[in-house]
This record gives sequence, C-alpha cells and structure tokens, in this order.
Amino acid sequence: MPSYLITGASRGLGLAMLQALVSQPATQVTKIFAAYRTKTDGITQLSSSHNGRVIPVRMDVTSPDEIRAAVAQVEKALEGQPLDVLINNAGAAPTTPGGIVNMNDLTATLDLNVVGVQRVTQSFMPFLEKSAVKKIINISSTVGCFAYQEYLAQVNTPAYKVSKAALNMLTLLWAQEYGPKGYVIAGLSPGYVKTDLSGDAADLEVSEAIPAIMDAIEGISQGKNGRLLDIKLPGWEPRYLGGPQPW
Amino acid sequence: MPSYLITGASRGLGLAMLQALVSQPATQVTKIFAAYRTKTDGITQLSSSHNGRVIPVRMDVTSPDEIRAAVAQVEKALEGQPLDVLINNAGAAPTTPGGIVNMNDLTATLDLNVVGVQRVTQSFMPFLEKSAVKKIINISSTVGCFAYQEYLAQVNTPAYKVSKAALNMLTLLWAQEYGPKGYVIAGLSPGYVKTDLSGDAADLEVSEAIPAIMDAIEGISQGKNGRLLDIKLPGWEPRYLGGPQPW
Ligand SMILES: NC(=O)c1ccc[n+]([C@@H]2O[C@H](COP(=O)([O-])OP(=O)(O)OC[C@H]3O[C@@H](n4cnc5c(N)ncnc54)[C@H](OP(=O)(O)O)[C@@H]3O)[C@@H](O)[C@H]2O)c1
Ligand SMILES: NC(=O)c1ccc[n+]([C@@H]2O[C@H](COP(=O)([O-])OP(=O)(O)OC[C@H]3O[C@@H](n4cnc5c(N)ncnc54)[C@H](OP(=O)(O)O)[C@@H]3O)[C@@H](O)[C@H]2O)c1
Repeated sequence: MPSYLITGASRGLGLAMLQALVSQPATQVTKIFAAYRTKTDGITQLSSSHNGRVIPVRMDVTSPDEIRAAVAQVEKALEGQPLDVLINNAGAAPTTPGGIVNMNDLTATLDLNVVGVQRVTQSFMPFLEKSAVKKIINISSTVGCFAYQEYLAQVNTPAYKVSKAALNMLTLLWAQEYGPKGYVIAGLSPGYVKTDLSGDAADLEVSEAIPAIMDAIEGISQGKNGRLLDIKLPGWEPRYLGGPQPW
Repeated sequence: MPSYLITGASRGLGLAMLQALVSQPATQVTKIFAAYRTKTDGITQLSSSHNGRVIPVRMDVTSPDEIRAAVAQVEKALEGQPLDVLINNAGAAPTTPGGIVNMNDLTATLDLNVVGVQRVTQSFMPFLEKSAVKKIINISSTVGCFAYQEYLAQVNTPAYKVSKAALNMLTLLWAQEYGPKGYVIAGLSPGYVKTDLSGDAADLEVSEAIPAIMDAIEGISQGKNGRLLDIKLPGWEPRYLGGPQPW
C-alpha cells in the first residue's frame, strides 16, 4: 500500500510506526506524511535520511488552521495521487488525581482524542477517495470499552476513558457510512505499550508491539470494517488475541 | 424525596418533569430547582404558582460562570439542607445533512451533552453529599448505544450519537466511584418522545412518557447504579421494558 499519513508522528507509537513504514521497500510504501505538533529529532532524522519519502507536515490536530495548511501541503506533495492509509494516532491520556469530581480536562481531551480525529478525517477524505485502498485506522484503546470498566476501576484517566468511548462510536459511524463505499475504517487497540503515555508499568516495549501493530494495520480488511481490533501477540494469551474487542 | 435540581427545565421533558414534580405533595417534594438557559413562560408560571417550591435558576450548562452563580443561589436557597436528586436533562441532538464528513458540531454537542453534565455534577456534589438519597440521573439515549447502531444507521445525528456514548461512559465512571459511597448514579433513556428535539415522528406524547419517566427516576436504586435504564411502558412491548440497556 503506497501512501500513508500518520498523526502524532513525533514520538511514541506514531514515530515507531513511521520508522516501521520507512523500513519497508519503497515500492510498497511510497510516501509517508509524518504529521507532528512538535518537530522532534526523530521526525527530522527520518525525513532527511528518507528525503521525499518521509514528508514532515506540521499539524496540531486541535488547530483547524494548521489542518488547512497541512491539507494544502499534502495536496501539493501528492501531485494528484491518492492518499491510501490514514492513521489517526495523536492522543493523550491525562490522569485525574483525587477522583472524577476533579476532572477538569474533559474538554481538552475530547478535543484532541475525538474532535481531532473528526477534523483530520473529514479534511483528508478527498485524497482517500481517490485510493483503491481507502483505509482509516483510528488508534483507540480498550480503556474506552464499557465491557472492561470493572477491571479498569483503578485506572485514574476518566477523561481518556470517556474520549476513547466517544472515539469508538465515531469510528463505528464512519465505518457504517463508508464501508459500503469501499472504505475500511476501524479502531485499533495497540496494546499496553511503554511510551510517555503509558509509562514503564505497561506490558510491552515499543519494539515488541510495533510488528504486531503493523501486521494489524496491514491485515485490517473489509470484514473488519467498523470493529475495534486487538493486536495479535503470541505468548501473551489470553491477552492480544488479535480479534475484535467488545465495546 | 424532598429536593431536586433539573437542568434544561425550560421546555420539553425538563419542563414536563418539573410539572410532574410540583404536582406531588409538598411533603414528598419540598423544593425543585428549575435550571434554565432560556426563561420560558412555563418556568415563570410554575415558579409563580408554586412560589418557594419551584426555584428558577439561570444556568446555561456550557457556562462555568453561570454554573458558579447557580451554585451560590442554590446554596443560599437550601439553607444548609441537602440536594437530594440531580437530573441532568439539558441536551441537544443536531442533525448533520449529507453525512458524517459534514459533521462540524461535534465540539458544541460534546460541550453541552457531556462536559455540561460533568460541570454540573461536580459543582453540585457538595449539596448531594449531605443527602441520604444521593441520586443523580443523567438523561441519555439508546441512540448512544453501540448495540443499536445497526438499527440507527439512517438516523443522521452523528454528533448526538457520539455524545451520548461518551455520556454513558461518564455516567458509568461516576457510578463506579460513588456507588460504594451511597450514591445512585444512572442513565435514563426517556423513550422516543415528541419534543422539539425528536419531532412528531416520535413514539410517545410527553404526557404518555412522563409518568413512566417519573416512575423510573423514583425506582432507580442501588441495584441499578451505573446502568442505562429504559422506561417501562406496558402496551409497547418489546420496547420500553424498563430494564437496563446494553451499551
Ligand atoms: N501506549 C499505550 O499503551 C497505548 C494504549 C492504548 C492506546 N494508545 C493510543 O496510542 C496513541 C499514541 O499514544 P502513545 O502511547 O504513542 O503516546 P505518546 O508517546 O504520549 O505520544 C502521543 C503523540 O500524540 C501527539 N499529540 C498530542 N497532542 C497532539 C496534538 N494536539 N496534535 C497533534 N499531535 C498531538 C504527541 O505529539 P507531541 O510530541 O507534539 O506532544 C505524540 O506524538 C494514542 O492515541 C493513545 O491513546 C496507546
Ligand atoms: N425527546 C426524546 O425522544 C429523547 C430521547 C432520548 C433522550 N432524550 C434526552 O432528553 C433530554 C431532554 O430532551 P428534550 O426531548 O426535552 O429536548 P428539547 O425539548 O429540545 O429540550 C432541550 C432542553 O435542553 C435545554 N438546553 C439546551 N442547551 C442548553 C444549555 N446550553 N444549557 C442549559 N440548557 C440547555 C433547552 O433549553 P433552551 O430552551 O434554553 O434551549 C431545553 O430546556 C436531552 O438530554 C435528550 O438528549 C430525549
């Protein structure tokens, strides 16, 4: 699948997905738009060592102005070619000490994790429309699943939980409407991975999770439209079985 | 149960709940805070004919300033007595013509239907804390349930669907934390009722739905903490069975 756009590519899973994509043959992955809010060394290095294949694009997903400018930049770089895969990865999981009565970051968290995905998706649809692949992957989390809340009672990220539940519904609605038009739109739970977001208590090193994440993205096809999918990671049973998650 | 606060009491279900509450004996319902954004004739009439029992309170739930002022007003009127029941009812269900790619009202809808509930709930907790009843009812909708999306594909209110999914998670998180502290916090799906929000195609007249809604609010006790409940309306089977809804 030739061209990709990844949001939140500055660090964490976004940067690691970018690295995994550039390591694939240029025939398989032609262009990767690395959308960032903060221009990190990771972005700078990958774009200079893969000049023209990795294209850094400034895009704070909470800024309509930056999204508009990014669309113009991407349009120019695509030269009429399609965008094949959009990976909505940018996100944050702020903690709320002292309980939900203290949750004052719901607006900001919804704006980033939910409205950000809506803004980016609606803005880049014209380029996906030209693609034969038409794939949109929203990086979500089982932390937003109703089915798991009993087990997550001690996880003090209420705004994150609410935002990922909302994102899962947003993903489902997009998939419902665009699945019949040849798109594949799905959520992906990337596993519990040691990044700035999850910290060192997480299950997996980024390097362990990334092959499974890339396999999942590659493997998500029409039959999985509208689902929230798990990564598949042998040896971690009964976790990471690769199937659709309950909402 | 003596004292209530209802948001969005200016019209529709909020005003009808207010009317139903004032029609109960003053020994059962002592004080009702009728929170409104728009001061309608309905509010004015009920507060003048039930002076001191129906207390109009200006409160746009999207305005932190108005909420702060409302808290001060309610605190004064309660004279140290508890607030027993909070009904988060204010809400809107904007339609998105032409599909989800045109959805530009997600921010506003989340701010009203989700963050509004968070702001109001966190602000009035000190008064609920004093109550022996400690009941919070969030008026939600099965339109926000993942389980029903297949049947709702033609309903073009994507922002509403996302917001009610988010509200359901918010309700569950509050219930999880405060259930063990003696609170009952639940969502209530009021039925598909002919108001400005739903229009004339809806199932029920407000007058038909209201007794079932009031019964539901009355009947929600500890065992139903954290659930999204249906109204019970004989004659409408298999709808309106009164049980918990799937998420
Ligand atoms: N790690 C896990 O265990 C885990 C589990 C489940 C789901 N996820 C999901 O995976 C995704 C990536 O998380 P991560 O673990 O890689 O977190 P991370 O290391 O904290 O990275 C977050 C990324 O999002 C970007 N970002 C934040 N706000 C942004 C904005 N306004 N505009 C554009 N980009 C923004 C950050 O950019 P800056 O450098 O500019 O801040 C960064 O690139 C998130 O959606 C997260 O919810 C992660
Ligand atoms: N009717 C149904 O079939 C149905 C079904 C499922 C769920 N519900 C839920 O029931 C609740 C009430 O709906 P309804 O049918 O009664 O709708 P409605 O007749 O349109 O009334 C909406 C109410 O919300 C108030 N409101 C709107 N924005 C507000 C704000 N920023 N601050 C404070 N109040 C605000 C309105 O006040 P103004 O007069 O100032 O606009 C009005 O009082 C909503 O939460 C809705 O989602 C309704």
